Amino acid sequence: MQRRSFLKNTGLAGILAAGSAPAFAQTPTIKWRCASSFPKSLDTIYGAAETAAKTVSDITGGKFQIQVFAAGEIVPGLQVADAVQNGTVECGHTAPYYYIGKDPTFAFGTAIPFGLNQRQYDAWWFFGGGKELYNEFLKEYGITSILCGNTGAQMGGWYRKEIKTVADLKGLKMRIGGFAGQVLTKLGVVPQQIAGGDIYPSLEKGTIDAAEWVGPYDDEKLGFNKVAKFYYYPGWWEGGPALHFFNNTKKYDELPADFKAALHAGCAEGNTWMMAKYDAQNPAALRRLVSGGTQLRPFPKAVMDACYNAAMERYAEESAKNPKWKKIYDNFSAFQREQLLWFRVTENTYDNYLATARPKGSTAAKAPAKK
Amino acid sequence: MQRRSFLKNTGLAGILAAGSAPAFAQTPTIKWRCASSFPKSLDTIYGAAETAAKTVSDITGGKFQIQVFAAGEIVPGLQVADAVQNGTVECGHTAPYYYIGKDPTFAFGTAIPFGLNQRQYDAWWFFGGGKELYNEFLKEYGITSILCGNTGAQMGGWYRKEIKTVADLKGLKMRIGGFAGQVLTKLGVVPQQIAGGDIYPSLEKGTIDAAEWVGPYDDEKLGFNKVAKFYYYPGWWEGGPALHFFNNTKKYDELPADFKAALHAGCAEGNTWMMAKYDAQNPAALRRLVSGGTQLRPFPKAVMDACYNAAMERYAEESAKNPKWKKIYDNFSAFQREQLLWFRVTENTYDNYLATARPKGSTAAKAPAKK
Repeated sequence: MQRRSFLKNTGLAGILAAGSAPAFAQTPTIKWRCASSFPKSLDTIYGAAETAAKTVSDITGGKFQIQVFAAGEIVPGLQVADAVQNGTVECGHTAPYYYIGKDPTFAFGTAIPFGLNQRQYDAWWFFGGGKELYNEFLKEYGITSILCGNTGAQMGGWYRKEIKTVADLKGLKMRIGGFAGQVLTKLGVVPQQIAGGDIYPSLEKGTIDAAEWVGPYDDEKLGFNKVAKFYYYPGWWEGGPALHFFNNTKKYDELPADFKAALHAGCAEGNTWMMAKYDAQNPAALRRLVSGGTQLRPFPKAVMDACYNAAMERYAEESAKNPKWKKIYDNFSAFQREQLLWFRVTENTYDNYLATARPKGSTAAKAPAKK
Repeated sequence: MQRRSFLKNTGLAGILAAGSAPAFAQTPTIKWRCASSFPKSLDTIYGAAETAAKTVSDITGGKFQIQVFAAGEIVPGLQVADAVQNGTVECGHTAPYYYIGKDPTFAFGTAIPFGLNQRQYDAWWFFGGGKELYNEFLKEYGITSILCGNTGAQMGGWYRKEIKTVADLKGLKMRIGGFAGQVLTKLGVVPQQIAGGDIYPSLEKGTIDAAEWVGPYDDEKLGFNKVAKFYYYPGWWEGGPALHFFNNTKKYDELPADFKAALHAGCAEGNTWMMAKYDAQNPAALRRLVSGGTQLRPFPKAVMDACYNAAMERYAEESAKNPKWKKIYDNFSAFQREQLLWFRVTENTYDNYLATARPKGSTAAKAPAKK
């Protein structure tokens, strides 16, 4: 047998062409595009997708490459689900509650008001039936979702005037989206849909009275502290909002098993990375804001209670008419009841003790609110 | 050229022997052994190492295999660091505070009393200087550490009699190890080192008065509820104890870049998996324990304060004589002060609100302590 015919017959020409080093992979190089719902300036949320993509590339020796595009580069941030569904991109990194206009059930991919905190969300997703139920819901959209990130409990937003009573919410023009907006409508708030970059001028001019964004680290960048004095907490509508990698199911199913595993592992890295980065960055930003004159305020208990009851009312309405919502909500809320029971025992008690514990004679850990 | 000589010359015989499928990898198969410090019966802690190992295998198409061995199979659970250091195994999954006998500084790999909670630990490790400082400390042991798991805040253990005052600690024979034992010694506790399997009979016979283990899910398996009535919280000595993959640095450095990245990604999966699994499992176990007659008790504030002050005293002593400890402690405690400041604002407020919030007329979420 001649060399040429042997090579042709066994299909090894490609191997030899690459030289003497081990020269071919198990699988050909795969290139995916990931549309992020976020601008690069939100470096922590945006960075979670880049961390996942870098990890996937690193562990496959560059053979599975995912290029991340900022919001607007391929599609606008709020159209990521559509772009994934119709195959414009293979995947996207997004906050699934952006799509509650299609079906409120999408919210369980991020957060519902008074829902799970970050740890509880992870527990629900991986061991409480979350990923199975949510991916079953996503089937009709041709999307397969992988958890990739969380902001932790967000702040409750910036207000030009104090919120002292439930009545102060009446007529309040607030930049707030999605489900929280629907809940607050019940209390007289007039929700406004405004893109990130337009919030500052709207607040400055008084076109709106209040705006919520994320937390100290991100909020500081947009300068809200210069145009609104009162910074409220907690962001009860986002107690542990999750981010997800939305993957086109057909493309996902075509991945070789090792690349599929790499994608999940990459998202696990992104998941841990994002939460850790926010937690590490928020304290200093909060200190700077408070030093600059921002007034921290907890929402009064009566306001929290009114919002809580409005949320429960909204959930009952949705459960009565939307079986897809009801199926996940029933599981989610039962899981949450059990989590709250457990967290209030040792976890919360530990956190609450340390929140006020001080070494004898120390003043170092005083909260900025008391400055 | 004849086929035989061509194959010989180009070294392709091995490829062809494996059939027509793409048949060799970029790198040869690497097999590592991982010594766990835990028995298989602690399925969540032990499982974190197995999850990491499975992920590494999956994403490398089986070319990087890590076999996990339970405590005692290769070396006893408390000798994992030695086994990694001397190359008996390439890696181990362990709670680094087991090695405080070598140097108390090891404790920062797991927890110190009144230290960081799980989220704060992740933030410190990845973005607070933790992984750099700790791995610098580990250099002399020839170990490279990768974070892989956390139990969350543990319970404060099982007691045959109630702890009502600081004086009740005096003479208390308690199964508790490491740093917490040293702190409690200051308050008159007589710490006992007893392996997991021997705790039950010791508690039953009254050889010891109290014992701490992990949390409801693990404690229930060992049946402590049958021989001690009072279950205290929080486990202030383990507010967010981390687990680590200890790797023999020489072996770690020899890994190809993609396998190294795979190992980190596998540990990231193990990290998320373990915390989520504990959170998902603990509530039901707690319910069963309480239904069976276990009495839940928070440590009285005066007891917490005495323990807190004893811990701070112990830290001051160690900082005065151990520069390695001091270097990490100064960073760790400064980071913690900032984390506490931030968590007490929105995160704790959110958790605390939900801990008591109830839908109008609902009784579903009552805490078991009130049964």
